[in-house]
Amino acid sequence: MNTSYSKLLRKIITLQRRENLIPPNSSILIGFSGGIDSSCLAVAMLKLREFFKLKRIALLHVNHMIRGEESYRDEEFAKSFAQKLSLEIFIKRVDVPKIAKEKGENIEACAREERYKAFEEIRREENFDFVATAHHLGDLAETILLWLTRGTGLEGLLGFEPKEGYIVRPLYLAKKEDIEDFAKREGIEWVEDRTNYDLSYARNRIRHRVIPELKKINRNLEETLLRMREILREEHRLLCQLTMDAIERVKKEGRRAFLELDPALQRRVVVELFGIKNFKEVKKVINRIKKGDKL
Amino acid sequence: MNTSYSKLLRKIITLQRRENLIPPNSSILIGFSGGIDSSCLAVAMLKLREFFKLKRIALLHVNHMIRGEESYRDEEFAKSFAQKLSLEIFIKRVDVPKIAKEKGENIEACAREERYKAFEEIRREENFDFVATAHHLGDLAETILLWLTRGTGLEGLLGFEPKEGYIVRPLYLAKKEDIEDFAKREGIEWVEDRTNYDLSYARNRIRHRVIPELKKINRNLEETLLRMREILREEHRLLCQLTMDAIERVKKEGRRAFLELDPALQRRVVVELFGIKNFKEVKKVINRIKKGDKL
Repeated sequence: MNTSYSKLLRKIITLQRRENLIPPNSSILIGFSGGIDSSCLAVAMLKLREFFKLKRIALLHVNHMIRGEESYRDEEFAKSFAQKLSLEIFIKRVDVPKIAKEKGENIEACAREERYKAFEEIRREENFDFVATAHHLGDLAETILLWLTRGTGLEGLLGFEPKEGYIVRPLYLAKKEDIEDFAKREGIEWVEDRTNYDLSYARNRIRHRVIPELKKINRNLEETLLRMREILREEHRLLCQLTMDAIERVKKEGRRAFLELDPALQRRVVVELFGIKNFKEVKKVINRIKKGDKL
Repeated sequence: MNTSYSKLLRKIITLQRRENLIPPNSSILIGFSGGIDSSCLAVAMLKLREFFKLKRIALLHVNHMIRGEESYRDEEFAKSFAQKLSLEIFIKRVDVPKIAKEKGENIEACAREERYKAFEEIRREENFDFVATAHHLGDLAETILLWLTRGTGLEGLLGFEPKEGYIVRPLYLAKKEDIEDFAKREGIEWVEDRTNYDLSYARNRIRHRVIPELKKINRNLEETLLRMREILREEHRLLCQLTMDAIERVKKEGRRAFLELDPALQRRVVVELFGIKNFKEVKKVINRIKKGDKL
């Protein structure tokens, strides 16, 4: 196996060494859409099977039944992809349009929610240690910019983590370019999701219109955002810890303790205790407490 | 005077009431380029002269001598603009190309530096209380996005303040649209700086290519960033305060106290004490201290 020149594999190895993403003898279920990212993830994990000392690898394809015929084409592709690599595969069909309609939810958000539900369900039923998703550094940059655009505090600027509970993201340090190079070098096939180019989706607008412009200013944009994220994550952790201490005190000593808090912590305590995130609502609650409301 | 419908004036008034930007009986020197923003600022401040109880208003035009003939056209425009409004004006010529060459600096950065130097010089010489600049909410959004693109921690995400020392920014809450409406309504004339459209300047790329795309996702982008900024500013202030306390302890107790600090504070202490900002350098210094280096 010639892995010496592949940037993608090197970045997966670096992440594993740095974060101990997947302990030895784990079994992993790979979230597999059939797109370039998850196709490369599947091949890369097979190539690194020994490096990771993986006990079992399987794919899970969730058919969201959103894009009519295309959904079934993708499902078929997933099956034949698995077959070619002699990989175990699970297929799960979820009628997202129906569920979204019943719940009155946005279809994209609903698909995401149902996908993660399916991941967890199959992971438990089939006794996998982890679900691996194909999120990479480009997705991280998009997520950060989306949060920034729609409004956030520190937490949104953190995007997502390489490891969150049972979810692991081995491609976390890889850029789209690394994935494309790998696909080319390894002759990997994938299916294109035509909604990827639909600019009515905010994420696609960020991906195709905003990020290319920002990369003309800084071609290492993704790495730059990753470094910012590292700084902010440490500061966010410290603030979370201070918030937890503050909540303890407020629970014991009530309003007086709240009034003595730093304004930044007053905000975080209100967000945490009352579950309100809206900027103006949080301000209102703080003002009501200042004027005499109990906590 | 009919100010009842002008959003621009209302936003200036709101800012003044909220932040007490300019105390009564102040004298202000307006940084005047001749562009739409500073032309509107000048007219707006004249209209609000009584509201602010201003003792004296004057313009200061800095000719950076960058754009050849155009620089002198702008200087002439500034003079005639002041004359029409019967406003006192100061003209200052600075040979920025020469200075930038001598210092080996980027010409844009040098122009900015020299401009602020000139502001402060004339302010002192002529005994003005404040220099008012025409920075508005659109500039704030651009600044935040520029910092994000080039790399930053929390402080870059704060952009600039409505008041920094002797500098005040009465248009802080106003958007470009408010300024354009005001210019139209009041029949204000201005000169166009053709470098505003030059995409080789990163800021122009953010202005003309990135922000319009982000506004298709959230048309209140500027206000959204302003709210994020308010949250982050409070948290940044708290972290600065904790850093100052930590530095006190480290100065007294040395390395041992440093090692006990939260990682977020270790980073900030190193940045503060050694004046290093580069991400990797900061990490190296922290590691050296952990391995035994003195502080």
